[in-house]
Amino acid sequence: MRILILGGAGMVGRRLVEALVANGELGGRKIDAIHSFDVVEGGVSSPLVSTSAGDIADAGTISSLVAARPDVIFHLASIVSGEAEVEFEKGYRINLAGMQNLLEAIRLASDEYRPRLVFTSSIAVFGAPFEEPIRDTFLHAPLTSYGTQKAICELLLSDYSRKGFVDGVGIRLPTIVVRPGKPNKAASGFFSGIIREPLAGLEALLPVGDDVRHWVASPAAAVGFLLHAATLDTVVLGDRRSLTMPGLSITVGEMVETLRQIAGDEIAALIKREPDAAIGKIVAGWPRDFSAERAKSAGFVADTDFAAIVKAHIADERARRQQGEGRAA
Amino acid sequence: MRILILGGAGMVGRRLVEALVANGELGGRKIDAIHSFDVVEGGVSSPLVSTSAGDIADAGTISSLVAARPDVIFHLASIVSGEAEVEFEKGYRINLAGMQNLLEAIRLASDEYRPRLVFTSSIAVFGAPFEEPIRDTFLHAPLTSYGTQKAICELLLSDYSRKGFVDGVGIRLPTIVVRPGKPNKAASGFFSGIIREPLAGLEALLPVGDDVRHWVASPAAAVGFLLHAATLDTVVLGDRRSLTMPGLSITVGEMVETLRQIAGDEIAALIKREPDAAIGKIVAGWPRDFSAERAKSAGFVADTDFAAIVKAHIADERARRQQGEGRAA
Repeated sequence: MRILILGGAGMVGRRLVEALVANGELGGRKIDAIHSFDVVEGGVSSPLVSTSAGDIADAGTISSLVAARPDVIFHLASIVSGEAEVEFEKGYRINLAGMQNLLEAIRLASDEYRPRLVFTSSIAVFGAPFEEPIRDTFLHAPLTSYGTQKAICELLLSDYSRKGFVDGVGIRLPTIVVRPGKPNKAASGFFSGIIREPLAGLEALLPVGDDVRHWVASPAAAVGFLLHAATLDTVVLGDRRSLTMPGLSITVGEMVETLRQIAGDEIAALIKREPDAAIGKIVAGWPRDFSAERAKSAGFVADTDFAAIVKAHIADERARRQQGEGRAA
Repeated sequence: MRILILGGAGMVGRRLVEALVANGELGGRKIDAIHSFDVVEGGVSSPLVSTSAGDIADAGTISSLVAARPDVIFHLASIVSGEAEVEFEKGYRINLAGMQNLLEAIRLASDEYRPRLVFTSSIAVFGAPFEEPIRDTFLHAPLTSYGTQKAICELLLSDYSRKGFVDGVGIRLPTIVVRPGKPNKAASGFFSGIIREPLAGLEALLPVGDDVRHWVASPAAAVGFLLHAATLDTVVLGDRRSLTMPGLSITVGEMVETLRQIAGDEIAALIKREPDAAIGKIVAGWPRDFSAERAKSAGFVADTDFAAIVKAHIADERARRQQGEGRAA
């Protein structure tokens, strides 16, 4: 089988490619080729994997990728929430027109072609005021342009699937914790920062109170969601093709305490509490807890607890350092 | 003030223009000019009213209409549910790209220009399985391309309003009963047909059982919703700019009985029960009852009862005949 990944050079995309290469198969079918596309060149090096770079808002570019008739397409490409809010036109171009181009390329490819399309949506489709926990029948009323674009893409995915043009599954990812790499400017960045930075011996700013609750999943869980979405029987979804992924509902205080138990008081002391009213206000508008019943009954599996997430991050970082040392030697 | 109406030649559009001309003002401000645009020329004749025809999917056409800086824009233009289902590309072009053109024309017009935009959405944004009654926080999971397009337009309207580009109000109209004119092929057509045709001395087919329940509003109520949406203080809407309009939840049996009480047994006997499994299946997927609490608290007023709707239709038809005779004389 052939697999196309849009956004294959991103944090989740790279992990997905690695997992596919390691497995060698998807849903019991041997993988013959993986093409990873992103706005920048790069990604996993493997004989199975080819890469290219371009603009998903360019219809011709997308048509040529779809022309290879991939059996499964993962669409992870997106500009992030903060950028979509500041760059209004760019957000709609990449996050909405990109999806429209992809769906149209698939629809127009041929009458017989109906690939599985796995689309990464976001819990940003929800906006306050919420019910709690948020159930699968709750209104999508996003409070950002990013969330609006994701909600629209979900509607298109369901309609194109209902019409038989594509076999779509949309997965609303929780906030991914622990994100590796450098701190970024995303308002949600501190959720990863308060774990990642202390473990690297660095200070981390905590701009909100310990009682702030949020919905999180590990990078490994996110890859698990993608692989399951690529292979599940979509009959169980009916005409509602997108699902809130199961996650952990956890407070910042519980996250800090978990870090302390695993890494000790000195590491936990690297977290500096510096309340930021602006970030506090943004985060107050975010969802905190979901039932995620449909996803669970469709076989999506959440992280078991936050300690396992922290330990997996520590193991990932150790492996990354060893790989780095191996390459340097 | 200047008013632009997109879709001004349609059934609701004409009534809206007539009401605006008759009132001479909107929200306490004198109306200086009304421009009515539609895919076909036509509409109400008045010194206040100018008309033009064109394609709302043409961005230049919309930009030139917006260039006159109307204070209030009513966007009623749309192809109907059945046509959008068969003509996939046309549906997205008119019902989605048309709205995008309008919103972009307004956004790009100037930083100071922020007109009130009243958009007619539909209860087709909802799809079975439902909660009952459907509350204002219920998921939009449409089961038609038309409903998908309306749901997307609502999301865009809220996002462009939140960003301050426009001051939007979306109103989800119930099924309009009694629609004047000839029977059409819409699956919902019988809801009007079983009242209109017998009153005109003609047989009407009833393809569903008497226990079928639906959510309806009169043409006069629809115009009232539009006028209120044009003048209400949008602060009460927050960032959720669209509302389910209040209607009557009524069964087909209750509708028939109301007709019998007003017009007598002989008229009611013109309704011929001919169950149609295909129509029955479509109608089974339609919503039947709403709380519409947000709209009611925002001052939207529903019809009081179905008898008043039937009597208003009879009065409208009488006035239409008299006008016709007046012009002929």
